[in-house]
Formats: sequence, C-alpha cells, structure tokens
Amino acid sequence: MKEELSINFKKIGIIETPYEKVAPYQPFEKDVNSFKVIIDPEYSEGLERLCSFKYIYLLYFIDRYSGEGDLVFKPDWTREDIDVGIFASRSPGRPNPIGLSITSIKKIEKNIIYTTGLDVFNGTPLLDIKPYIKDLDVKPEANFGWLDELKDKGHFAKHLMGIPHD
Amino acid sequence: MKEELSINFKKIGIIETPYEKVAPYQPFEKDVNSFKVIIDPEYSEGLERLCSFKYIYLLYFIDRYSGEGDLVFKPDWTREDIDVGIFASRSPGRPNPIGLSITSIKKIEKNIIYTTGLDVFNGTPLLDIKPYIKDLDVKPEANFGWLDELKDKGHFAKHLMGIPHD
Repeated sequence: MKEELSINFKKIGIIETPYEKVAPYQPFEKDVNSFKVIIDPEYSEGLERLCSFKYIYLLYFIDRYSGEGDLVFKPDWTREDIDVGIFASRSPGRPNPIGLSITSIKKIEKNIIYTTGLDVFNGTPLLDIKPYIKDLDVKPEANFGWLDELKDKGHFAKHLMGIPHD
Repeated sequence: MKEELSINFKKIGIIETPYEKVAPYQPFEKDVNSFKVIIDPEYSEGLERLCSFKYIYLLYFIDRYSGEGDLVFKPDWTREDIDVGIFASRSPGRPNPIGLSITSIKKIEKNIIYTTGLDVFNGTPLLDIKPYIKDLDVKPEANFGWLDELKDKGHFAKHLMGIPHD
C-alpha cells in the first residue's frame, strides 16, 4: 500500500503582472510599477528587513496550468528533436506546479513589493518569499546543462533573457 | 468573505541525509553517498538530461516543523537583538513550510540522485527538482541584506557555510 502524505499550502498573497494570456520567458520590465507582489495584510509584518535585500525568490502556485504534462517532452522553442525530462526543465507542467522566480526589489510600501520583471501571469497565487543571499545562492561554477548542446545557443539566450524575437 | 484557495501537493520522493535530529546550516559533506534524493520510480523518467546540470534546486516539504512561527522573530544565532521578518529569513517557521536548497549532482543512477551536502533532515518529502541555470539564477549583484549589518560577520559566515564552531 502506498503511503499518501497530504501536503496543503495556502495563498499568502498575489503576484500582479501585465501578462494575462501570454508571458515571456524572462521578461524585461517595460513600465515602472507594472510588477507587484501584494502580500495579504495579515502577513505583512513578515516583510520586516526584506527591503535590505537586492534580490528575492518568489515561490508561487502555477494555477493556470491544468493537469500534468508528460515527464519527458520536446521543448518547442529549441526547434530541435530533443527529449528533456520535466525535472531538467523549468516548464510549468510539473508533477507539483510550484513556480520559482528570482526578481529584484524596487521598493516596498506597506504590504506591496514593487519588483522588476517577472515571468508569471497576472493574479498568480503567492506561496512564499525568501531572500536571495549572495554566498548561499550565487553559484559561479553553475552551467547551462543540456541547453549548452543546442545548435542555436543565441536563440536560447534570447528566450532566457526575455528578448523579443521572431 | 475571504476567498479560500486549496493548494495541494504530493510527495514525489524523499531526501536522505545523515541528519536525524540536528541539521547544520549549510553543511559540508563528510561521507561519499551520504546525501541522496530518491525519486519515486513513477517519476524517474522526468530525470532525463538532469545529469547535464552541475547544480539543481530542490523544493521540499519542511515536515518536521509543526505550527507556524512568529512573523517577526529574533534569530538566536546572531547573538544580537535584531528583529527579522520571516520572509527576510530562510528559517523553517514559514506560513507555507516549503524548503529550497541548491545542491550539486555527483551522479544519477536510475531514480537516485547522489548530491553534495544538504541542510535538511533525513526523510524529508521532496516536492520538485529544477535545474539551476547559470545566466538565469546566478545574480552577481546579489547582496547579504540585513546580514551585512551584523557586528560579527565572521560568525554569520560560518553559519552560512556550515563550518562547525562554538
């Protein structure tokens, strides 16, 4: 008999972005104040000293994604016939649809964090905020994994940096 | 009336470490093969190409933590009278106890990922694995936030790097 563990989380706020139907990969921001994290007021005390950090992690529930994707898939945008496991990708179709983005803080006013660009849909439920701490989270030896094997690396880089292209 | 959103996740594997009762902050590993991520076999296909990455993010359920901590607290180890919001810390006592660690892959055999040191308890339920991608996740401009204001920065650094000390 398989052990079933019930893991329940709650929405602690919401992420506001300009993206209703299409979100770029890693967008550059266009307008000031167009990306906001709004914490439910009962949790706003927990933001104390957060503004001392330059970057933060946001963890969120990928609520627009319905149903599980395949465990192995061919990412469209690579334009190559390449099989990738879901855990080797940042695709939303994961067994547990938890999103993770790094963004930088522009300012915090009461329960609102104004951030730079975020690749999430408007209204996405927030699960957690964590500080991105230099020595802990910067891994200078990190690599690009299978992305480095793509023939058109420049194209991949555009996706990664959110640069619009054909 | 407050909108209640039910967010349910499932265990997709387990993290094995040598830590049963006390876990260091960011431990160095001592023994080869003492840190493992064991994916439930039904998800092991999703690991395809993961071994091409040097570093990965692990997301897990902090199941040893019972009940919520305060939204603002004084971290013991700082030895300073400093108030910190839970979202400005990596403390486990969060509204949603989701843990996030970065570790590096030593090898992957079938459904087992052998990793370097991990600051989690043995048996921790795994929620997700994501690749840590150089240009996306390395933020060279990152800072230390309020940690930089501590009088004893050397002590903080030891905690951060998991170096044993008095």
